[in-house]
Amino acid sequence: MDVFPFPIARIGIIGGGQLGRMLTKAAKRLGCTCVVLDPTPGSPAGQIAGHQIVGHYHDPAKLRELAASCDIVTFDIEDIDTETLIQLEHEGFRIHPSPRILAVIQDKLMQKETLAAAGIPTAPFIPMPEPSPDAFATFGYPLVQKVRRGGYDGRGVAVLQTPDDYHRHLPAPSLVERFVPAVKELAVVVARGQNGDCRCYPLVEMVFRAGENVLDHLLAPARIAPQTAQAAMDLAVRTVEMLGGVGIFGIELFLTETGELLVNEIAPRTHNSGHHTIEANVTDQFEQHLRAILGFPLGSTDQLSPAAMINLLGAPDHRGRPVIRGLKEALAIPGVCVHLYGKAVTAPHRKMGHVTVLDPDIATAERKALRVRELIEISGEDHP
Amino acid sequence: MDVFPFPIARIGIIGGGQLGRMLTKAAKRLGCTCVVLDPTPGSPAGQIAGHQIVGHYHDPAKLRELAASCDIVTFDIEDIDTETLIQLEHEGFRIHPSPRILAVIQDKLMQKETLAAAGIPTAPFIPMPEPSPDAFATFGYPLVQKVRRGGYDGRGVAVLQTPDDYHRHLPAPSLVERFVPAVKELAVVVARGQNGDCRCYPLVEMVFRAGENVLDHLLAPARIAPQTAQAAMDLAVRTVEMLGGVGIFGIELFLTETGELLVNEIAPRTHNSGHHTIEANVTDQFEQHLRAILGFPLGSTDQLSPAAMINLLGAPDHRGRPVIRGLKEALAIPGVCVHLYGKAVTAPHRKMGHVTVLDPDIATAERKALRVRELIEISGEDHP
Repeated sequence: MDVFPFPIARIGIIGGGQLGRMLTKAAKRLGCTCVVLDPTPGSPAGQIAGHQIVGHYHDPAKLRELAASCDIVTFDIEDIDTETLIQLEHEGFRIHPSPRILAVIQDKLMQKETLAAAGIPTAPFIPMPEPSPDAFATFGYPLVQKVRRGGYDGRGVAVLQTPDDYHRHLPAPSLVERFVPAVKELAVVVARGQNGDCRCYPLVEMVFRAGENVLDHLLAPARIAPQTAQAAMDLAVRTVEMLGGVGIFGIELFLTETGELLVNEIAPRTHNSGHHTIEANVTDQFEQHLRAILGFPLGSTDQLSPAAMINLLGAPDHRGRPVIRGLKEALAIPGVCVHLYGKAVTAPHRKMGHVTVLDPDIATAERKALRVRELIEISGEDHP
Repeated sequence: MDVFPFPIARIGIIGGGQLGRMLTKAAKRLGCTCVVLDPTPGSPAGQIAGHQIVGHYHDPAKLRELAASCDIVTFDIEDIDTETLIQLEHEGFRIHPSPRILAVIQDKLMQKETLAAAGIPTAPFIPMPEPSPDAFATFGYPLVQKVRRGGYDGRGVAVLQTPDDYHRHLPAPSLVERFVPAVKELAVVVARGQNGDCRCYPLVEMVFRAGENVLDHLLAPARIAPQTAQAAMDLAVRTVEMLGGVGIFGIELFLTETGELLVNEIAPRTHNSGHHTIEANVTDQFEQHLRAILGFPLGSTDQLSPAAMINLLGAPDHRGRPVIRGLKEALAIPGVCVHLYGKAVTAPHRKMGHVTVLDPDIATAERKALRVRELIEISGEDHP
């Protein structure tokens, strides 16, 4: 019989954003306490945790302070000083997923090379240490350029259809990959436990805005054939098993016009495409991540209702203290679940919250979500 | 179009227990901030709110301090100085549900008289200002004695089958009511909005331990005929409409051997019998309470999965820092959702957490919940 004191564990979370906030709620529910490391005082996660170390993810001393004050360390972001984390892990601090995996994923070129070496299908690519018109032309258009480090939420990625687009390239060490005309973009949230047990959540369909590399909304389960869904889940599990990590991983995939599945990107953390699991699934991705890193049995990933999800983004050209319009009207729609992240200031396209819509019919859920996106506007007190 | 600043509202919560804790989580999700009033520093709700006024519910100055620091005040307990709250409401502070309703409910005799005056069926009763063997005998056995003030969780209630049981009576101003042999005890969680809109959650069945006035587990939806469920919901709505309050109310009912429904007790707050709504229903009772008191539209009460719920109580004879056994084993059962309340010390029968079990089959959910109750033990470091 297992015996735990209270608290069950002290969890250190690097990054105090919305993912850390939702993780903190789940951690407290499971009888854990949390310490958050984030440079912004009163971060979204820090507000719930009640204990924040104000410091940067690249500050070795702060990372060490966090590790020393906790039983186990995890993260809600990827842009962390992995050298220090690897040293801390070497000294015996428990960090999940392993910073060695994070180091691979942080570098998009190394990530792709690791996938390719393991025989996991991805879009064809080459390293592009110094972008030049000739090198791009030799690889051939249309192509996607991805900077090796620091990209996030569509930043650090350029889709170039023809040589005329070259002026939009990113002047940084990169990789270029074949532009894949995808029928659908999919995401699989996978949990891997300390015993190697893997569980997938039902497949998620990511709908992007036409012509932009910005997520518009998510649908779960994805509207695809069951055998394609199963193949995607198998591929996601293979990817996570190849990495060998413990915790939640978000695996983004392309479904091509020829029916092929390609791994696009890996997130070694809880994922935007798993937010709906809070309301729609038996065990949500945040509790699942904690179960994994604590060495607990993984929970059921069964989905109780179809769901659609939209991010609530800060309005363009607006900054400062948030001003929220349309909240009451949105809440009048049955099945609407609003999550605001407690961010003290908005900025253009900043993730300020999200809305999950539950409905027995996925098409209705989608329609309601798009209506909510029209209704809710988050502007700021400072604007032109 | 509605326009809100961030935060949407500052919510003052009198009582920092588990109900306040779960309310605080919902409030932060909706973009509110919370201030908790509780005498114990680091109360369960205070840990999440990040802002607690340490003080007692009967301290007029502390109640005023809370009201003055918030936009709206609510409560997670009933034992509050209502005289001060009524004065504050009179001065224009927004308090929901109204302290006038709380004052009626605090006094179990006044509560019953109010129900009777409104023609709402309850067990026959008489006032019993000074308990005596003769007065009890004149009313007749079997009877239930309830002290007028301060009862909670089965305390302040004595079930006396015969005159030989008189020695177990409670020496306090009371009422006595007819002992009703109930086929089932039921609970309805009802929300009433500021516009008078009422919504019921599906009926909950409360299963008590044989021979004890202690709740064993809850099942939702209750295993009763649909027309009985509808009649119970109608009666619960009538009760809440009669009171005229805004927020969540828990209405406990008896279903008698003759098929009659009697209102047993009213709780003017979120209720133990609504905990499962966090996982099992589209909108949980805590968000629903906030929607009501904020003047927002009420959410869907649809239930996505049958659920069973057990409270995790502190082991008898144990006190001090909690020691938790069986957590991992319980989490291995599919559908088990554990909630620990973050209480720093346990005490005999203290509510330390609860477990909701989701399962498509309610009998399986019940069986799993009873198994979890066997598995999880919360003892304390100080014990004989």
